[in-house]
Amino acid sequence: MSADIDNPAASAPADAEEVQANEAVSPSSKLAEFSAEEALELESGVKLAPWQIAFETYGTLNADKSNAVVVCHALTGDQYVASDNPVTGKPGWWSLMVGPGKPIDTNHYFVICSNVLGGCLGTTGPATINPDTGKPYGVDFPVVTIRDIVRAQARLVDYLGIDTLFAVIGGSMGGMQVLQWAASYPERVFSAVPIAAAARHTSQNIAFHEVGRQAIMADPNWLGGHYIEHDVRPTKGLAIARMAAHVTYMSDESLHQKFGRNLQDRENLTFGFDADFQIESYLRHQGMTFVDRFDANSYLYVTRAMDYFDLAREFGSVTNAFKDTNTRFCIMSFTSDWLFPTSESRSVVKALNAAAANVSFVEIECDRGHDSFLLDVPEMFDTIRGFVTGAARARGLPAPGEEISTTDS
Amino acid sequence: MSADIDNPAASAPADAEEVQANEAVSPSSKLAEFSAEEALELESGVKLAPWQIAFETYGTLNADKSNAVVVCHALTGDQYVASDNPVTGKPGWWSLMVGPGKPIDTNHYFVICSNVLGGCLGTTGPATINPDTGKPYGVDFPVVTIRDIVRAQARLVDYLGIDTLFAVIGGSMGGMQVLQWAASYPERVFSAVPIAAAARHTSQNIAFHEVGRQAIMADPNWLGGHYIEHDVRPTKGLAIARMAAHVTYMSDESLHQKFGRNLQDRENLTFGFDADFQIESYLRHQGMTFVDRFDANSYLYVTRAMDYFDLAREFGSVTNAFKDTNTRFCIMSFTSDWLFPTSESRSVVKALNAAAANVSFVEIECDRGHDSFLLDVPEMFDTIRGFVTGAARARGLPAPGEEISTTDS
Repeated sequence: MSADIDNPAASAPADAEEVQANEAVSPSSKLAEFSAEEALELESGVKLAPWQIAFETYGTLNADKSNAVVVCHALTGDQYVASDNPVTGKPGWWSLMVGPGKPIDTNHYFVICSNVLGGCLGTTGPATINPDTGKPYGVDFPVVTIRDIVRAQARLVDYLGIDTLFAVIGGSMGGMQVLQWAASYPERVFSAVPIAAAARHTSQNIAFHEVGRQAIMADPNWLGGHYIEHDVRPTKGLAIARMAAHVTYMSDESLHQKFGRNLQDRENLTFGFDADFQIESYLRHQGMTFVDRFDANSYLYVTRAMDYFDLAREFGSVTNAFKDTNTRFCIMSFTSDWLFPTSESRSVVKALNAAAANVSFVEIECDRGHDSFLLDVPEMFDTIRGFVTGAARARGLPAPGEEISTTDS
Repeated sequence: MSADIDNPAASAPADAEEVQANEAVSPSSKLAEFSAEEALELESGVKLAPWQIAFETYGTLNADKSNAVVVCHALTGDQYVASDNPVTGKPGWWSLMVGPGKPIDTNHYFVICSNVLGGCLGTTGPATINPDTGKPYGVDFPVVTIRDIVRAQARLVDYLGIDTLFAVIGGSMGGMQVLQWAASYPERVFSAVPIAAAARHTSQNIAFHEVGRQAIMADPNWLGGHYIEHDVRPTKGLAIARMAAHVTYMSDESLHQKFGRNLQDRENLTFGFDADFQIESYLRHQGMTFVDRFDANSYLYVTRAMDYFDLAREFGSVTNAFKDTNTRFCIMSFTSDWLFPTSESRSVVKALNAAAANVSFVEIECDRGHDSFLLDVPEMFDTIRGFVTGAARARGLPAPGEEISTTDS
């Protein structure tokens, strides 16, 4: 099919589902490949090899390699933080945050964003060919953890020849990775910005994820996790998982403001099971479009990684996770986020305070729920811009708006 | 199978699923049957006939028929409010509230509880034989509303020869019915106790229901809603719907207290997709047991009735719904109920105040979420006991603890 230049929506590939399947094994982004001798040791004890990590970079690494920023993506995110997504054709998921002149200013910083381990846009995951069988891993892929995901990122940072990161930043599961980076590699993280995150997944968080996983596994097309080799996809189950999750990303208030009890393209109730209400139509659309860009098995693995996340389990206590840290933290939560509520961020702050860490904390007034971190929330941008500028000065980097002093050189 | 007297759990029927299917058409409770000439007119315009309503009663109707109390059940409840459920073998769902000496004291009041229209324990619903086809209605059953459900109850009350109800009480969807009773039949309701309810279903409420319905309809055994005649059941889809809903009935805090991140019968994470966490195991159990006692199509119909509920739509405004009412209201909400939050109850109270109604309102401090109304919450029982005693005096009925004065007779 040729692109229809009169219709911007036509920039999305004709068969996004097929494009996604290709991107899962042969990403159009940058790629770091590790051989059978360069295994990634996982928390489960499994040695994963060969393996690869798909990533994008933005901006230029400076001479002393001190301006690198790792951006960590959330559950359904990807490496295309500030450039067009090859599956959807849409702009990068955080192009409000990352780019020239943006809070994470790519005129000043070298930004690295990679697809998570277990993901489906080019980093090794359940859609990867299992070298032992010649078929896609499916559920024979080892369960990975946030620690494993971060370890893979650290290997990528090594590969790029970078020792210390100026900053690590991310929201939701991305924020979990930020905390894990600071806990696992304290000497490599100058500053850390976990947004709408937590030091553990709560019982309620696990519960919602379990509903989604059960929906996927109940789909007869899941075929015990080995659907790819049979050329089918459990799209119905995955769509339901996405719908259930999506409700938790929004606040009651934002749903009320956006949809209320408004009817969808009709004036009266139809007394049937069609999508009478706009919220039903919206959710169905969310479910249907999600299956074009995401793999069901990856959804199982990445949700599991989040469920397993619990810094206190790994380090004895959250305070202990950050013992003697020199990292500068900026922690943010949103008033209307009931999935990762302020209380969770606050308990991270308390633990950091008990570890005598350098930490600032802002609870941002915003009625748009957990997804606020992805949206146009000026106070979040201002806070990050301020924090990053201060951190740049402390690091001896020119902050955005400041010229590099040539007389000092 | 013979009952095992050493094992109380063995009181549950061996094949609960089959018992449920039988109870849906031939209930073991009391039954009021209405002929083809006694149609129930539905809000959709459909005239439903013949139809039947299954119910239980407790206590004795007094001579002037002034001590009748209608208890309205919630989404997955039934008529067995204070007696053993024939499907599960378990005690009535509100036996803490209704019975001799209980807040709704059956030594004093005549309690009526019926299965809702569209339900699956004996009242006409999607499992009923469609007289036009000789097969179960399935999704050819007309969509019913809370108003229809209450209208059917009013027909039952007529059938029992009762004019005015001393009280109507219920929680959640039961509370919606209480509000509808007071709005539709103000002269027949002396007092009304809607608990953890609202005058409308919110966008978030509808969203969670839609996820459940989609899960049911995605199950290949649903067969377009006509599974009964093919002798299969969409149990996987229904279990997922129940799991998703169940999470919303509990508070984050109660989940944390009950389960936290505790592991299920194991000391370490298994790095797999089994139920590692107790909350996962608990949810799976909730899903699996639910399908034994509930019908998937009924779940579609009853959730739809809740979604459609909106007193302001019917009456122009909630205040208008209660214009000139003489009913005495006692409204209750729970601090940790995020599904039907206090703000919804408070807006009903405001509307009643604007209608100059007699209304008391209590927000009960309880950390157990929406399901609190079904649990042992002493402040709720005390509040209802007090309210009912006062209402009995106002009605000229002997209140519990008071003897009927024989000198007056």
